[in-house]
Order: sequence, then structure tokens, then C-alpha cells
Amino acid sequence: MNVSGASVSDTVPAPHETRDIVLPNHDSHVAQIAVDIGGSLAKIVYFTSSPDRKGGRLHFKKFETEQMDEFMDFIKILVKDAKARLPTGTELVLKATGGGAYMYYDRMQASLPGVNIQKEDEMECLITGLNFFITEIPYEVFIYNEQESDPMRFEEKTKAIYPYLLVNIGSGVSLLKVTGPNEFTRVSGTSLGGGTLWGLMSLLTGAQSFDEMLEMSKTGDNKNIDLLVGDIYGSDYSKLGLKASRIASSFGKVFKKGVRHTKDSFSPNDIAKSLLFMVSNNIGQIAYLNAEQHHLERIYFGGFFIRGHSITMNTLSYAIDFWSKGKMKALFLRHEGHLGATGAFLKHRPIHNARHSISFSENFRPDPAVSPSNVYHVIENTNLELRSDKGIE
Amino acid sequence: MNVSGASVSDTVPAPHETRDIVLPNHDSHVAQIAVDIGGSLAKIVYFTSSPDRKGGRLHFKKFETEQMDEFMDFIKILVKDAKARLPTGTELVLKATGGGAYMYYDRMQASLPGVNIQKEDEMECLITGLNFFITEIPYEVFIYNEQESDPMRFEEKTKAIYPYLLVNIGSGVSLLKVTGPNEFTRVSGTSLGGGTLWGLMSLLTGAQSFDEMLEMSKTGDNKNIDLLVGDIYGSDYSKLGLKASRIASSFGKVFKKGVRHTKDSFSPNDIAKSLLFMVSNNIGQIAYLNAEQHHLERIYFGGFFIRGHSITMNTLSYAIDFWSKGKMKALFLRHEGHLGATGAFLKHRPIHNARHSISFSENFRPDPAVSPSNVYHVIENTNLELRSDKGIE
Repeated sequence: MNVSGASVSDTVPAPHETRDIVLPNHDSHVAQIAVDIGGSLAKIVYFTSSPDRKGGRLHFKKFETEQMDEFMDFIKILVKDAKARLPTGTELVLKATGGGAYMYYDRMQASLPGVNIQKEDEMECLITGLNFFITEIPYEVFIYNEQESDPMRFEEKTKAIYPYLLVNIGSGVSLLKVTGPNEFTRVSGTSLGGGTLWGLMSLLTGAQSFDEMLEMSKTGDNKNIDLLVGDIYGSDYSKLGLKASRIASSFGKVFKKGVRHTKDSFSPNDIAKSLLFMVSNNIGQIAYLNAEQHHLERIYFGGFFIRGHSITMNTLSYAIDFWSKGKMKALFLRHEGHLGATGAFLKHRPIHNARHSISFSENFRPDPAVSPSNVYHVIENTNLELRSDKGIE
Repeated sequence: MNVSGASVSDTVPAPHETRDIVLPNHDSHVAQIAVDIGGSLAKIVYFTSSPDRKGGRLHFKKFETEQMDEFMDFIKILVKDAKARLPTGTELVLKATGGGAYMYYDRMQASLPGVNIQKEDEMECLITGLNFFITEIPYEVFIYNEQESDPMRFEEKTKAIYPYLLVNIGSGVSLLKVTGPNEFTRVSGTSLGGGTLWGLMSLLTGAQSFDEMLEMSKTGDNKNIDLLVGDIYGSDYSKLGLKASRIASSFGKVFKKGVRHTKDSFSPNDIAKSLLFMVSNNIGQIAYLNAEQHHLERIYFGGFFIRGHSITMNTLSYAIDFWSKGKMKALFLRHEGHLGATGAFLKHRPIHNARHSISFSENFRPDPAVSPSNVYHVIENTNLELRSDKGIE
């Protein structure tokens, strides 16, 4: 496939949907499809050609893995549409990755007769997808720092990206050391990931969607739940440089012998904030320790856990900065949740290393008037227009 | 003070109390006292001389930090007794460490008129205490492996102990790199410690004491709570060597969009097991990563979190073995919860490096008939008799 001139679409998507990518030079007329079925979410990336000009768009969708029927219904529609455009006798290929590519293989085969479902390795797809976003898509990668008046700062698109660490946060977390376009090792992982946060949050706050949980955490105060250094010492533990405000024990204020607390003894918003800090801090620390062990300084965070949520990104950024004493950098992506699906999509055809250089129109600026606490909004509602050097033909 | 011939007492203590240590050659007639007041527990170590012979005993007590009154009442009795034995005009010294030594300093001063309360650095006390147990006390340090018919294996008492990592698990966790008797650095820490486990457990299971929580976790099945690799892949992820039984996401089976789960939707025992695995695995992983970064192979686990609980020790041991590929060793202690208080106690007088060698009577054997799942029982109910070379004079 031809990814030259790839760009993020200027069409504003529905809330919490992911912005399309325009591929002005991809000449397929086929609705190529790839899926990445994880423990919690099933992601879809598919291409549709423009009706009136060369090229087309990459679309990004997601479903709960629990709602397999919805997911399959959506795929069936895509497949039907794709088949209608295929020359007779041509086989339709569906690329599938993630654990669900194995788990649901038979079910997909049965539901999609005549479709050639090809399984692709999950880690390989993550890296292929990430490399595509880093090297090809302008205004995709950014660092996040709430101390700055404009907390999002986009990185220059670059080809000099190796080595780096990818921390992919889905239900669980995988840490991959990447040393070249196809050279990577899964160096570590932790079971304290998105699934942990969502699971504990739903039990403890009654929130029924991830958005609701994130919303709750915005106004919560974790000091009512967590035991801080100051709660133990009455002040800083200055000899060790531990500030009074530092969390000594997550949920350390909850348990009191003989006192029967229930979740209703605490504000759900405070609990939500504490949980979010606990999981994000921990991932940040494990990411740092692995980066240190493997001498890596650039750490990309991927996966749907992040969702452009400012507290999460700030906590991860802070943890990396704190532990590495400013040596390492936490990097985020606008399409962070679709790395694997995009990688699987790109397997439809070999990707060539040589690329056309691309430019972009200058009118993209995140609106500084928008509150920094709502980066998702900033990301998704900016009028972004990008063009290839050669223009859209 | 004279610690030569120190040994663990053969007097069986009350359930979940810590066995005394006999100091046959310590000649103080004063009830020396030290306290270590942490975020959750306040520990006391004090010495009483034998009424009828040289030497005496070290006693180990603990209170909830929340129950400061109970704690202070106990100290007052000790102080009263000690003062009665002091020559007139002599000042009684109380050594105090932990955050509470600062936090409750004024309160202790007010409650204990005429007592000289001396604050000691928490980390320094931990190391002093640990070094005392490792180098002086036989049958104190052990490794734990449930694969063996006798899961506890005691280490030889040794002086060649450096360098090592101490992972002290209280409400929060501190990791200290120790390179010599008085050379150490706090290299890391995590807020996911005992306070986190106790806090989340009490909210989610209704358990009202730590013992109740540990009891619950024994019969729980975390597979009903955690998302395993097999739940995502339907099998092993063999390319990465991830077994189907491996936990991919702690609490990953809990959240389902639109389904309102409460804690009553799950068995409290299953939740307890999942929480215990989550916190223990995470501490084990962070311990390994720090040991790796600092080239350390011996990892001591201290703090009241452990309490000789078999699942906890097995999880920590497994994590260290798994991540280090068998290179590192997880080490446990019978007096794991009193390292800081013992260290503070030892500050009463400088400790000399030269020591008498000591032997022990041969009749100490953990009873193999006792279930390996109840190590605390094994530890505390074994007829242990220890004597110094010179005998008890």
C-alpha cells in the first residue's frame, strides 16, 4: 500500500471516536480491513477509497470485546461492501491480530465465509503500527507537560527513532524494546493495566463506563484515600528528599482495624483519582526501570488506557521525569489505541522503507483557549489539514 | 549492649505474636525500649533482664498506629517498670524511629515526662536491625519454595552479606541498596504496599482484620477475577513464552460495559486472592528490576506485610525467580516486621563488630507434618532452643 502523503483527517469525528487518516496516494479500491482483538477492546482499521479522487481514508473503530456480536455485524457490513468492489474470483483478506485473532478465529471464519482471515503476531503489529505513526504522520506524537501553558508539544516527524521502549497499555501492559524497524523484544509486562483500573473502578465507584470513571477522577482528591509521607512524618522526610505530599501508600488511609468501611464511606471521585494515580504511577515506574535496564531514553505509551486523558498523561510523564531525573521522555500518540490494528492493516502489502517526504498545511494549531485538562477535546476538535508534497491528485 | 549468644526464644508466643529473642550475655538491668511508628503499625522492642540469671530477653510487640492510646499505655507501663530499676538521677532513654517518631514526638514527650526520647533515622534503623538478624540470629533467615516438600529452608548465619537489597514492605514499600554495615541508599519505593492491600481488601471483601484477609485468600480462586493469557488467546502465547495460566490483567474480568457489578457479584475469597497476587507480584517485579539495575542478587523482604504468609512468600519468591531467571534469591526473616524497631533498640549502645560465635541445640526442626500453607504456624510453634557457646550463665 502507498502511505505517502498520509495525514490526519480534518473531519471532526463523534466524541471519543478517533480521527480518520487520509491516504491521498493509496490506490486500492478495496475496503481493506484489519482487526486487533484484545482482552477488553476489539479495534478495527479499514480503508475506503475516495469516490471522486485518488486515495482515500483510514478509519478507526473500536468495540468492547464482550460485544462480539456488534463487532461481527460491523465487520460483515465492511466485508459485504468490499466484496462488491472486488473483481470476481479475487479473495478478500482480513488481517487479524491480538489474542482474539486466535480465540475468535473459528467464529470469524464461520461468520465470514469466503474471507481469508490471516493471523498476524500482536507484538509485530504494534511495532509496525507505531513506526508508521512516528515516521509518517505529522502532528501525531507529542509530549505532555501540565507545567507549560500549552501542555501538548508535538514532536517533529522523524526517521531517527531507534532505540525506544513501547509501553502498550491495554487490559494488561506489554513493554517492548525496539532497536530497528523489525527488531524488537518483549522485555517485560505487568498485569496492572487498564483492566485493573476499570475493574477496580467499576467495583468501587459504580461507574459503568470508562469515560464516566475518567470524568469522576477529574474532581477527586486522592489525599482522602492515600497515605502521604506527610501523614506519617507530619512533614517532609527531607533526609531522603521525600516530600510531604508524596504518596507513601495508595489506599493507605482506608483500612482501620475493627472499622467496617464500605466504598460508600469514601467519595467515589476520590477513589477514582487514587486508583488512576496508583495504576499510572506504577506503569510509569516499571517503564522507567525497564528503560534504564535497556539504556533507552524515549518511551512511547500506546493503548486505549490513555485516551488523551490529561491526568493519566501527566502522571505517566511525571513518573518518567521523576525517576529518570529528566533523562527520559514520555511520548504519546493521537492514535495510541490503534497501533496493533494499524500494524495489521499495513501487513496487507509489504511496506517499503523509502517514502516520499510529505508536508502539511500550516493552519494546524491546538486551540490554546481550550482547558489543558481536556486534551482529548483539544486533539479531536482541532481543524487539522494535511497535504502531501504532490498534493491530492 | 552485648548481643553475643542471641537466640530465638523457645517460649511459644500467643498466635500471631512474635517470638522473643534470648540475649544471654546482655548485662543491662534496665528495660531498654525502642519504638518504630509506621503508617499502619507501631512496633515496640524492649529488653527485660532475667530475674534469676545473666542476660535476658528481647520482646516484640505491635499496635495499630490508629490505636495510639493503647500503644502509649503499654509504653507507660514499660517506662514505669524501667524507671523503678534505674539508679536515682539516671535518665531513661527511649529510642524512636519511623515517621511517627516525628509525627507523635510531642505527644510522647507529654505522656512520658522525664524520658529522653531520641529520634533515629528510619532507614538506618532498618539496616541495623536487619544486619543484626542476618549476622547474629541462627534460624532467622530462610528461603521459601512451595515446590519443595519442606518449603522453608534456613540460610546459614553469615557475615558475608553485602551487597544486598532490602525491600521493606509496610504501608508503602522502600527499597534500600546496602553495600556495607552503615552504607546504604534508598534506591526506590512504591506506594503499592501493605496499606494498598489492606485498604482495597477491606473495601472489597468486608474483612476487618489482616488475618481475616489472609485467611480468605487461601481458598480463593483468582481466575474468576483476573484475565489470564488463556482468556485472551484461548491458549498459550507461545511465541513470547507466555503461558495460558499467566495473569494478563489483574481484575481484568470484572469490568463489563453497562453491567453494574458490585463487590457482591464476586466471591470475596476470589477477590482477596487476586489482590494478594496483584500487590505481591508487583512488589516482586519492582524488587527484581531494582536489584538488576544495581547488580544485587540477594533480596531480603522485611515488613509486617509478609507475616510468614505462605501465598505472599511464594508469590514474591516466584516473581524474583521468574524475572531473574533463577539468578536472584528472595530471602525472608522470622522477625521481618521488627527490623526498624530492633535497629532503633540497638542504637542504645554502639554495636561492636567483633562477636562471639554461637551455636544452637540440634533439636530445632520445623515439623514437616504441618501443612506448608501455614508457615506462620510452622515458624511460631516449633520447639526452638538455642544456646550460646558459653551456655547461659
